[in-house]
Amino acid sequence: MSMMKRVALARRPQGEPVDEDFSIEENAMPEPGPGEVLVEVLYLSLDPYMRGRMDDAASYANPVPIGGTMEGGAVGRVITSNDPSLTEGDHVFGMFGWASHGVQPANMLRKLDASVPLSTALGVLGMPGFTGWHGLMEYGRPKAGETLVVAAATGPVGSMVGQLAKAAGLRVIGIAGGPDKCAMACETFGFDACLDHRAYDDASALRAAIAAETPDGIDIYFENVGGMVLEAVLPLMNVGGRIPVCGMISWYNAGALGAGASAALPGPKLWRTILVNRLAVTGFIISDHWARYPEFLGAVAPEVVAGRIAYVEDIAEGLETAPRAFMGLLKGKNVGKQIVKIA
Amino acid sequence: MSMMKRVALARRPQGEPVDEDFSIEENAMPEPGPGEVLVEVLYLSLDPYMRGRMDDAASYANPVPIGGTMEGGAVGRVITSNDPSLTEGDHVFGMFGWASHGVQPANMLRKLDASVPLSTALGVLGMPGFTGWHGLMEYGRPKAGETLVVAAATGPVGSMVGQLAKAAGLRVIGIAGGPDKCAMACETFGFDACLDHRAYDDASALRAAIAAETPDGIDIYFENVGGMVLEAVLPLMNVGGRIPVCGMISWYNAGALGAGASAALPGPKLWRTILVNRLAVTGFIISDHWARYPEFLGAVAPEVVAGRIAYVEDIAEGLETAPRAFMGLLKGKNVGKQIVKIA
Repeated sequence: MSMMKRVALARRPQGEPVDEDFSIEENAMPEPGPGEVLVEVLYLSLDPYMRGRMDDAASYANPVPIGGTMEGGAVGRVITSNDPSLTEGDHVFGMFGWASHGVQPANMLRKLDASVPLSTALGVLGMPGFTGWHGLMEYGRPKAGETLVVAAATGPVGSMVGQLAKAAGLRVIGIAGGPDKCAMACETFGFDACLDHRAYDDASALRAAIAAETPDGIDIYFENVGGMVLEAVLPLMNVGGRIPVCGMISWYNAGALGAGASAALPGPKLWRTILVNRLAVTGFIISDHWARYPEFLGAVAPEVVAGRIAYVEDIAEGLETAPRAFMGLLKGKNVGKQIVKIA
Repeated sequence: MSMMKRVALARRPQGEPVDEDFSIEENAMPEPGPGEVLVEVLYLSLDPYMRGRMDDAASYANPVPIGGTMEGGAVGRVITSNDPSLTEGDHVFGMFGWASHGVQPANMLRKLDASVPLSTALGVLGMPGFTGWHGLMEYGRPKAGETLVVAAATGPVGSMVGQLAKAAGLRVIGIAGGPDKCAMACETFGFDACLDHRAYDDASALRAAIAAETPDGIDIYFENVGGMVLEAVLPLMNVGGRIPVCGMISWYNAGALGAGASAALPGPKLWRTILVNRLAVTGFIISDHWARYPEFLGAVAPEVVAGRIAYVEDIAEGLETAPRAFMGLLKGKNVGKQIVKIA
């Protein structure tokens, strides 16, 4: 009997995930039913949102059950198709999870063309790139001459935001972890400056450094990290500033987001800044907005093909490496979009 | 020599203002220069934002200096005009402060017509009414069938918001202090229900009561109070909800908005709710938007004249009563728009 492998959630993490929170399971290969497709996974996407799925807390999506396969988007190759829309050998994107193989209804899959590398469907032209594009254009409303700050600047969201903002004529300041990432933000992604948050002891010190790079204040803070960066940036926001909020990775291990994380940033102070600086803060979850994905692809894919939008991928090898790669992602150890090559 | 009276800021309050923070001063009557007008104040507006002006803290407006006249909008009658646009006996609105008389350039004054009572220029047809209208229409974006919650429901902002939302086909739930105000919210202003926040021990208890009145969740929370109401409402917001933020009176006496106020509502939790519930939170200061005031008057004044938009005023008598009336306003002792009749 042919077998498939998957990474299951062994137990719910306490804070940072550790090896024991995951287990590698072998199961019988699933059989596609009518209208379904069996796919061999080639590349698995690792994304910060997956940390939320590991907790048993109300969120915008259901948690992964204990013993269930870790969720995730992936690119694969069709092995068996029971639907006329796909044939063996087609490449597709689908939510196969952390697994070597998967079965999905054909209408849940997106067929990929060959004009760009397959793995880009997970990063620059996938969910993260789309998140950056939609959040910036829809809620950030960039105007030439303004100043934008984004953290995780070399990640697939931050690098998209920064490059689009530069193309729109903004001054773009990145925040990243370590001098190498900062160099990459400027050299590969064209940021005007990038600050290493690890070089500052606290939010005040980071704030002073950001202020020195943003002489006209900050008009857009694209929020994907929370924590010290948010605390540093908030008082620097200009009147009428916009804050699209797509994530807060620095707090994802903080459980109920209570005690520790809260001391530095009281809710009333945050609320008052929104009022006094007349900020527009908009939370969004990209899965609400897939209807605009073709528009994004139409606008951005040609830029990627032409090399005008750069991307960097960090590719781990083998399904078994996924838990460690994910733990690294949550600590910012990846450089660029974190992908696991499965086959 | 003819004299005028004014209420000065004697010292900066520690928390709640007390009598000693104010002083009544007599000064020589000011003389209008070229293009200026001398006005006898008839009605002074008292508004929560004035508490902010008493602190020496960075905000969207400069603090009142010690010894300076308390700021405020007022309606008055022209005594002497050195400008052809106004003549003796004209009624005007202007920023005369807490004073019996004032001099202003004619172009800083707005001439009032006689179709509605003069005092309405301070409430339902003045800054507070305009705040409710602009915030609801621009940032609340009400849609028939949705549910709105607003606190200080019988105040001039809350009652405007509630009545406009009802007219737009929303379910409207008010929050107010005490059973009499709650009855007024429903009977005078047409709210579907109104909850007395004083009847609940904490945010959880208030939340349960609000939840019982909002079976379809909350789409718009018009924020003018902060504190326990915000804490109660936030988890009840529907995905895609909107929160216009025009004030947070419950926190105005909290100084730097630190310690006490923060314990119950950590910033990260607030931020996470904005993300998970995909909320659009927009702070605004109505003075940025005066360009739209004529549009507001055109839309709302006929409704007031026709009696389709109700208003309630709470009128104290005499300039000397202004400090006490203001202290009462901050504690919610007023019923309806707080005004001081000066002459």
